[in-house]
Amino acid sequence: MNCNNCIKKPVIKLTNSNISLCEKHFIKYFEKKVLKTIRKFNLIEKGDKIGVAISGGKDSFTALSILKQFQDKKIITLEALSIDEGIKNYRDLKYVKKFCRDNKIKLHILTYKDFFNNSLDTMVKKFKYKTSCSYCGVFRRYLLNLGAKKFNFTKLATGHNLDDESQTVLMNQFRSNPELSARLGPITGIMVDKKFIKRIKPLYLVTERETTTYAFLKKFPIKFSECPYANLGYRNSVRDMLNDFEAKYPGTKHSIVDSFIQIMPMLKESFKEVKTLNTCKICQEPTSKEICQTCSYKEELNKI
Amino acid sequence: MNCNNCIKKPVIKLTNSNISLCEKHFIKYFEKKVLKTIRKFNLIEKGDKIGVAISGGKDSFTALSILKQFQDKKIITLEALSIDEGIKNYRDLKYVKKFCRDNKIKLHILTYKDFFNNSLDTMVKKFKYKTSCSYCGVFRRYLLNLGAKKFNFTKLATGHNLDDESQTVLMNQFRSNPELSARLGPITGIMVDKKFIKRIKPLYLVTERETTTYAFLKKFPIKFSECPYANLGYRNSVRDMLNDFEAKYPGTKHSIVDSFIQIMPMLKESFKEVKTLNTCKICQEPTSKEICQTCSYKEELNKI
Repeated sequence: MNCNNCIKKPVIKLTNSNISLCEKHFIKYFEKKVLKTIRKFNLIEKGDKIGVAISGGKDSFTALSILKQFQDKKIITLEALSIDEGIKNYRDLKYVKKFCRDNKIKLHILTYKDFFNNSLDTMVKKFKYKTSCSYCGVFRRYLLNLGAKKFNFTKLATGHNLDDESQTVLMNQFRSNPELSARLGPITGIMVDKKFIKRIKPLYLVTERETTTYAFLKKFPIKFSECPYANLGYRNSVRDMLNDFEAKYPGTKHSIVDSFIQIMPMLKESFKEVKTLNTCKICQEPTSKEICQTCSYKEELNKI
Repeated sequence: MNCNNCIKKPVIKLTNSNISLCEKHFIKYFEKKVLKTIRKFNLIEKGDKIGVAISGGKDSFTALSILKQFQDKKIITLEALSIDEGIKNYRDLKYVKKFCRDNKIKLHILTYKDFFNNSLDTMVKKFKYKTSCSYCGVFRRYLLNLGAKKFNFTKLATGHNLDDESQTVLMNQFRSNPELSARLGPITGIMVDKKFIKRIKPLYLVTERETTTYAFLKKFPIKFSECPYANLGYRNSVRDMLNDFEAKYPGTKHSIVDSFIQIMPMLKESFKEVKTLNTCKICQEPTSKEICQTCSYKEELNKI
């Protein structure tokens, strides 16, 4: 069997459209799809200073690499932002640093140690009865927002792909939290207080499988290991189920995201977040409470 | 292990609440839950003449039997409506007739043969390249509406349970048809032209498993066979997946329906159906086209 566009050997069969593509045509297809996503949802405007949240995984390398085309065309300024949680034998930003150096992308690194006086490794020991993902997520989002403002990003890009989004939509629905889905979508943070930064997901319409293939073909120096503290039981169940359905009924993931896009404006309107937020009494960052969740956790950590 | 309310042996463990109940307390729980559903969604008003669509399966017997309590209390008038598609060795209304006779419930039966000049058995032969469920569904809904009006029902009750609803919500979503879900819910047809009848689902919040247990305990004369023409491939896949998830994460089905109830008003508002429908040029029933789907199919049948 040949590539649908030439006589070369295919590297992937797209489940959604029953098309097989060779390396060259797949890369072309993939990049076109991401650029189309960016245009469709108006993710980028001329003059934007985009910061890409980069972890060193396939998704963030892919997002960074494709967005670089916009910098090369002088449409945007591009920088990268990594959060170093401090996880021994796991978070190693060596390749991220090299990639950014080689590609002349300015890289910022913010560490849990600097901002919260503790690495995740020590937090896990102190917070033994808490699920690490819960507070780690709060800290990471806090630093991403903080960094985005500190470095004057107009938008923060993440590597979330179609699989991530379809999983999250179902997880919220299967646990009776549709209001959490109001915060999803290819571009978020628009409705919220100006203190928050907009987040964009250029890989919104490409699947995990497509992204992995692209990252592999582009030879990004990817780490495939999983965080040793990750507690992904529920997400993994949803992921496996969706992969089974996708294999049996190709296009299921696209349909879930497409259905979500159709109802997204209503969800956002109906569950819209408080527009004017308080300012945290300790760190002056926006919060719905008196003291933000990050500062509450920090206080707890200091007491242990 | 005993029933949570007494020392008797339990007949069921409710997955959603980790409670085990004996026969007496389960029946009490089940009926209370259905009555609560009826109250919560205002499914019944005093003076209603409710027609129950009865097929002879566990769901419709259960709905009919519980609604009978409202007739006994003289809150509503209750009648039953069966559609006889004409399926040899399958559709047999003997027990339905006996049940209605024994319970003094007036039963109406409308047949495909009378209204469409063909039984489903002959239609299947004539329409060989069509999926039987597609036209059979159109014909059945047509006769249910027609019967409901003919017999002056104010509402038509069906036996749809929580499993049916959660499956349909996901099926619509997995096939990118969220607008079809705008027609779901515990009471439907409100927004539509007055020519349509309201439909109510008293079993909306009880699971398939609970309904089966109830019907079994109440010794309803149920047929468990499946229609020989049924083409339920996709629904069965979704059903199996949901059963797996429910076993692993109890409460999933309830959460899906609960999430749906939360977004239902927005869906209905956003995808609301045309309020003024045309009248079919042939049968004068409401339709969005010039000639309704039923009359189109009838014409096709007559030509073959």
